[in-house]
Amino acid sequence: MTATDAETIELLTRIRKDSPLIHNITNFVVMNSSANILLAIGASPVMAHCQAEVEEMASIASAVVLNIGTIQEDWLESMILAGKTANSVGIPVILDPVGSGATRLRTEAIKKIMEECSISVLRGNCSEVLSLGSADVRTKGVDSSMSLSDPVVEAAREMANEKNCVIAISGEEDCITDGDRVFRVSNGQPVMTQVTGIGCGLSAVTGAFCAVADDNLALATAAAFGFYGLCGDLAVKTSDKPASFEVAFIDRLYSTGSEEIEGQLRIEEA
Amino acid sequence: MTATDAETIELLTRIRKDSPLIHNITNFVVMNSSANILLAIGASPVMAHCQAEVEEMASIASAVVLNIGTIQEDWLESMILAGKTANSVGIPVILDPVGSGATRLRTEAIKKIMEECSISVLRGNCSEVLSLGSADVRTKGVDSSMSLSDPVVEAAREMANEKNCVIAISGEEDCITDGDRVFRVSNGQPVMTQVTGIGCGLSAVTGAFCAVADDNLALATAAAFGFYGLCGDLAVKTSDKPASFEVAFIDRLYSTGSEEIEGQLRIEEA
Amino acid sequence: MTATDAETIELLTRIRKDSPLIHNITNFVVMNSSANILLAIGASPVMAHCQAEVEEMASIASAVVLNIGTIQEDWLESMILAGKTANSVGIPVILDPVGSGATRLRTEAIKKIMEECSISVLRGNCSEVLSLGSADVRTKGVDSSMSLSDPVVEAAREMANEKNCVIAISGEEDCITDGDRVFRVSNGQPVMTQVTGIGCGLSAVTGAFCAVADDNLALATAAAFGFYGLCGDLAVKTSDKPASFEVAFIDRLYSTGSEEIEGQLRIEEA
Repeated sequence: MTATDAETIELLTRIRKDSPLIHNITNFVVMNSSANILLAIGASPVMAHCQAEVEEMASIASAVVLNIGTIQEDWLESMILAGKTANSVGIPVILDPVGSGATRLRTEAIKKIMEECSISVLRGNCSEVLSLGSADVRTKGVDSSMSLSDPVVEAAREMANEKNCVIAISGEEDCITDGDRVFRVSNGQPVMTQVTGIGCGLSAVTGAFCAVADDNLALATAAAFGFYGLCGDLAVKTSDKPASFEVAFIDRLYSTGSEEIEGQLRIEEA
Repeated sequence: MTATDAETIELLTRIRKDSPLIHNITNFVVMNSSANILLAIGASPVMAHCQAEVEEMASIASAVVLNIGTIQEDWLESMILAGKTANSVGIPVILDPVGSGATRLRTEAIKKIMEECSISVLRGNCSEVLSLGSADVRTKGVDSSMSLSDPVVEAAREMANEKNCVIAISGEEDCITDGDRVFRVSNGQPVMTQVTGIGCGLSAVTGAFCAVADDNLALATAAAFGFYGLCGDLAVKTSDKPASFEVAFIDRLYSTGSEEIEGQLRIEEA
Repeated sequence: MTATDAETIELLTRIRKDSPLIHNITNFVVMNSSANILLAIGASPVMAHCQAEVEEMASIASAVVLNIGTIQEDWLESMILAGKTANSVGIPVILDPVGSGATRLRTEAIKKIMEECSISVLRGNCSEVLSLGSADVRTKGVDSSMSLSDPVVEAAREMANEKNCVIAISGEEDCITDGDRVFRVSNGQPVMTQVTGIGCGLSAVTGAFCAVADDNLALATAAAFGFYGLCGDLAVKTSDKPASFEVAFIDRLYSTGSEEIEGQLRIEEA
């Protein structure tokens, strides 16, 4: 068994045993699917966005997942409160910059969250993530919105160092880096982009993997991506059409264990 | 045919014939599934939370279902307005105390609703429900968060008398009591806890059963629990994995009739 | 091949090729299903409701879809801002008057939107749509809440002229008119009324068809209705129960192409 296979199985086993509470402040579109995705892998999801309770909720959680789709100003304040609480109690914070770059509100929201909170993992697609980098990073990312070219990897690595967090870019091939180690993950299926909330669900799952990880969040994130993509690879055998694929995929998140994982992860360290 | 079989079939028949309008003020996670669950049993769901319309909506409804997951302050005010309207027009109010005990906001929200409105049925899991009882009730409920031990039944019965409402506790075995009669229901499947919104959906279904009941809301609630659990028992034969189970379950809520019900309900009066 | 078959195939082909961005401000219940429905036909959905971003979002979109289910005051302001932006950049605005006539808030919301914005297509069921007409229109619509009688068609035609928009009424048989041409569509299945969000999804799909249409929005709307209903006709062969029907339906929106469309649309021009 490879080291990444063993690590993935170990983290998944811990999630199923400990049911870590994952506190999500996420968008209206994916609340249901993110909750079901977290339940399927064995975690305990809670959605809570009201300023009056987010600190209390984050303080009893094992990870906080922030997602800015359908953001509004008061939710942004709640995200910052939850993020700061997570920082103070020492649990990971995952940030999903949905639509960053599309409107000023979203771009500014992400910047404000990253200024006020320490983020553990920033997970999005290539254009969303690189829109948040310095001019130098953005230049490297231009015209690379889907493919994992060497300049994108280099931009991600620089950004991880700049922001002091794990940068996790989803795409045909995924790239996860903490600025030092770089993982490429090629599990996953194109139909996953045709179902809303699959990307947001991966941010939530990354939260669960990081919640039970000892230390190495880049490796835990790569394990989350590999496992998630593998469940897609298995589910597409049941259906390659989006709605029935989603059903099969969530079933696979629930039922996939060490036997299916071993030898099937396509995680490579660069 | 037993009396509970006959009562369950009678109430379900009325729901399918009259399509009672069930006004839900519920959390963002389960709005879609609660609407589909209500449609499947033959009721007419409406979701409306704005203070400017909740009184009007409640006044044309046949039951009001309040659920505090993802609560925020202005929604709490709307819940109280809807509850008071329901009280004044004489329709049942179901209250689902999602996460009560987890944060002050939620515990206080439930207390405020129960102070200002007359609740017909309080439905939740054991820890949620008993967190709302007096010190004496909470003591009896300690260490009984899942199993339906005699002290839990006794605590529920006391609480029903204290609060003057039906207490309905979901668990491996369910307990429904109005302080006088006690029903135990053992239909239902463990996978139902692995799908988000199944519990909240039961609160909505309880609303529909109570909407068409003549008087005995404890019996109507037990009928709702028995029917709902039975649909789970039937659906698990199609799939025991969460996403495909949910599809099969909602299909069963739609298609299950007197033939499947007769002799299959496991409702016992203590 | 009939002209409507050809037009429907042409518009669907454009959607799948161009992936038009459809900006939805819609209700909490259907956000997930509307997003999945739009993805399935090949469009790019975005949900954004915050006043701080709706103008920017609408200005980069190819159509705006407004839906007043679960409306609240600040969302109404956002809808008007998005509608005005759409008008100024010249993209279609679809309006879905969910629950119009049920509460003053909803009836007034629709009136305000229609006063302040130019609507391209008003899509709803018969009672919702006719509740918004003049006294003369409402009288013609009385007692015709489901069936497409001649007085309803006449009322719709008058209303289209009054409001200067396409009136699209969903029912057993649908009626689409711009005041001049009248289309009747009889694809579709009764089970579609037993799944929440199917009607709202049709408004979103109408947005996508209008986004890629050259000019004739009544025809584009009829094409959207025909295609959508046909996917229902095909899906019901897989299942006539609501939850599994919904899965099959969304799969069909994704997979149905010119071969299935040709000769199967039941769109007639009166």
